[in-house]
Amino acid sequence: MIDLAMKKWWTIMTDENRRIVRRKEKSVKELAEGILDNNRALLAQAITLIESNASKHFEKGQNLINEILPQTGKSVRIGITGVPGAGKSTFIEAFGSYLCDHGHRVAVLAVDPSSSLSGGSILGDKTRMDQLSRNPQAFVRPSPASGTLGGVARKTRETILLCEAAGYDVIIVETVGVGQSEVAVRSMVDVFLLLALTGAGDELQGMKKGIMELVDILIINKADGDNEQKALKAKEEYSKILHFLTPVTKGWESKALTCSALLGKGIEEAWKTIDHFVATTQKVGSFSERRNIQRKDWFYALIKDELETAFFSDEIVKGHLPKLERQVIEGNVPASLGARKIFDLYATQKRRIGHDQSY
Amino acid sequence: MIDLAMKKWWTIMTDENRRIVRRKEKSVKELAEGILDNNRALLAQAITLIESNASKHFEKGQNLINEILPQTGKSVRIGITGVPGAGKSTFIEAFGSYLCDHGHRVAVLAVDPSSSLSGGSILGDKTRMDQLSRNPQAFVRPSPASGTLGGVARKTRETILLCEAAGYDVIIVETVGVGQSEVAVRSMVDVFLLLALTGAGDELQGMKKGIMELVDILIINKADGDNEQKALKAKEEYSKILHFLTPVTKGWESKALTCSALLGKGIEEAWKTIDHFVATTQKVGSFSERRNIQRKDWFYALIKDELETAFFSDEIVKGHLPKLERQVIEGNVPASLGARKIFDLYATQKRRIGHDQSY
Repeated sequence: MIDLAMKKWWTIMTDENRRIVRRKEKSVKELAEGILDNNRALLAQAITLIESNASKHFEKGQNLINEILPQTGKSVRIGITGVPGAGKSTFIEAFGSYLCDHGHRVAVLAVDPSSSLSGGSILGDKTRMDQLSRNPQAFVRPSPASGTLGGVARKTRETILLCEAAGYDVIIVETVGVGQSEVAVRSMVDVFLLLALTGAGDELQGMKKGIMELVDILIINKADGDNEQKALKAKEEYSKILHFLTPVTKGWESKALTCSALLGKGIEEAWKTIDHFVATTQKVGSFSERRNIQRKDWFYALIKDELETAFFSDEIVKGHLPKLERQVIEGNVPASLGARKIFDLYATQKRRIGHDQSY
Repeated sequence: MIDLAMKKWWTIMTDENRRIVRRKEKSVKELAEGILDNNRALLAQAITLIESNASKHFEKGQNLINEILPQTGKSVRIGITGVPGAGKSTFIEAFGSYLCDHGHRVAVLAVDPSSSLSGGSILGDKTRMDQLSRNPQAFVRPSPASGTLGGVARKTRETILLCEAAGYDVIIVETVGVGQSEVAVRSMVDVFLLLALTGAGDELQGMKKGIMELVDILIINKADGDNEQKALKAKEEYSKILHFLTPVTKGWESKALTCSALLGKGIEEAWKTIDHFVATTQKVGSFSERRNIQRKDWFYALIKDELETAFFSDEIVKGHLPKLERQVIEGNVPASLGARKIFDLYATQKRRIGHDQSY
């Protein structure tokens, strides 16, 4: 009877639920050892832990990060964005495969804050990077599907650390370029690539504002067939524009290249340019300086997150804020006074809670 | 004897100190009445109160704002920025004088977060707008000289309210365009003007990035003499560029004009365009919509300020933060864990203080 009930129960379960039942929850130690051992299943499980929004998983995730921290940082972190249709997936597939063939181990991550709304856009469909996903030297992971950019960014930053501990020495972080996602990715990588197409003049108008200022290396893709001459011309035009901009990386003048991801042309040059970028910036010190600043900025951004989360999830604040906000918007209460008022309510109540908890 | 001592003491005092001694501190009621009466001396005194960094002045300043709030909002708030050398002072002098001659009352404020460092740049030297400063229909006030952009912006926002209560119906807020100051000014005005020079192609390169996206009206100054034809050509070029950008104001397509502030040419057209802007945006509703959003955004920015100020001035936080920051930067403590740790120290201590204060 029991077996029959079990069987029936098993049959009506979804595939997803079955996977959860099958998977025993690993300890921090088991996960850390698995990651250092390059156990892909445990790496994936650790990333799922980091991506969890459950507060009970936060501490465990942080303990894991703390555990593997000494084994992190030894990779080149590459950010990639591109205008729509520039062929990001094809480029990453060709570029990643080239690196795997040359002894590297490549992890491909993504920051796509829109994926939770649209139901997954970039990398949601792994088959887009079919060849690379099946390469034993590569690890392809879709964007964490969680609301805010800040949340997605935190998860991706910590996933970079996990992948580094697992021995991946090239980490590629792709972004679709929704909202501020490029700025978020720029703040977690060493070098930032923009994939563009020919026709700099026209294309520039469609290009996202401010994007050229974030770029270390601009690559004009689809430099093949009839398009090759146009691509070379575009490269010159872009070079001129880049020359006018203040370089985003100290000691490095942003460069324009061409490639054909489809034919595998220019892929080696792209890697050599990145290699040259790393060597140059390590020499002048801006490589480690940037990483230090990134860690510092991230630390302070997280502190502010903590402060705001505590404040805006507070019951007293939630009770008074809507009315006060309305009064400020309607111009009946000055903004400064309103802000001071709600903050005082919050601070006073915190002290009252302290009193209640002490006795 | 006493008289002699007083006389000696008076002699060695600076002019500034003498002014402070002479000036009796007014009550909120006196200040509010003085402002509504358009008493320039009391308006200036009220602005000084708002600009004070002393915490004892904060409450008084807020009570004053609260008092005059029903009399605010009835002006056109105009932001003006410009490339260096575009002739902002000359333009504001000519423009402001034109408005005064046509029955308006004009207040000129400034946002210059650099002035506290450099010892005052824009408007610090009032003689730059000599004619306008002496016009009884105009009120020219230099930028508050206080460190951060956030602080300067708060003071300028509240000064706008005071000036409106005093009956100024056109408020001009000038910015030098240091750092994010244009974004700050854009967020407190109804219409944003950019003063530019001829030679759009070359000039654009030198123009601050992202500035064109904030602009409702672009004015090419110095359209006089040999320069007039070039200015008209530049106007066409800029118009084309503006046409490509997403308009910053719903219902308004950003426009390019020419003027010669020196000869007073194009000043009337500039005002008529602003007038048309106001009428158009009031009709489609984006005028009041923007003001509502500005009040809301400001309210939340101030709440975050309160939270951060309380946190970063906390003794426990100040005691632990430097070491923790170093550990995070050096990569020895994960940023998330570090942020959680310092936040927990802060929150626990707040509860302890609550307990101490309760008993």
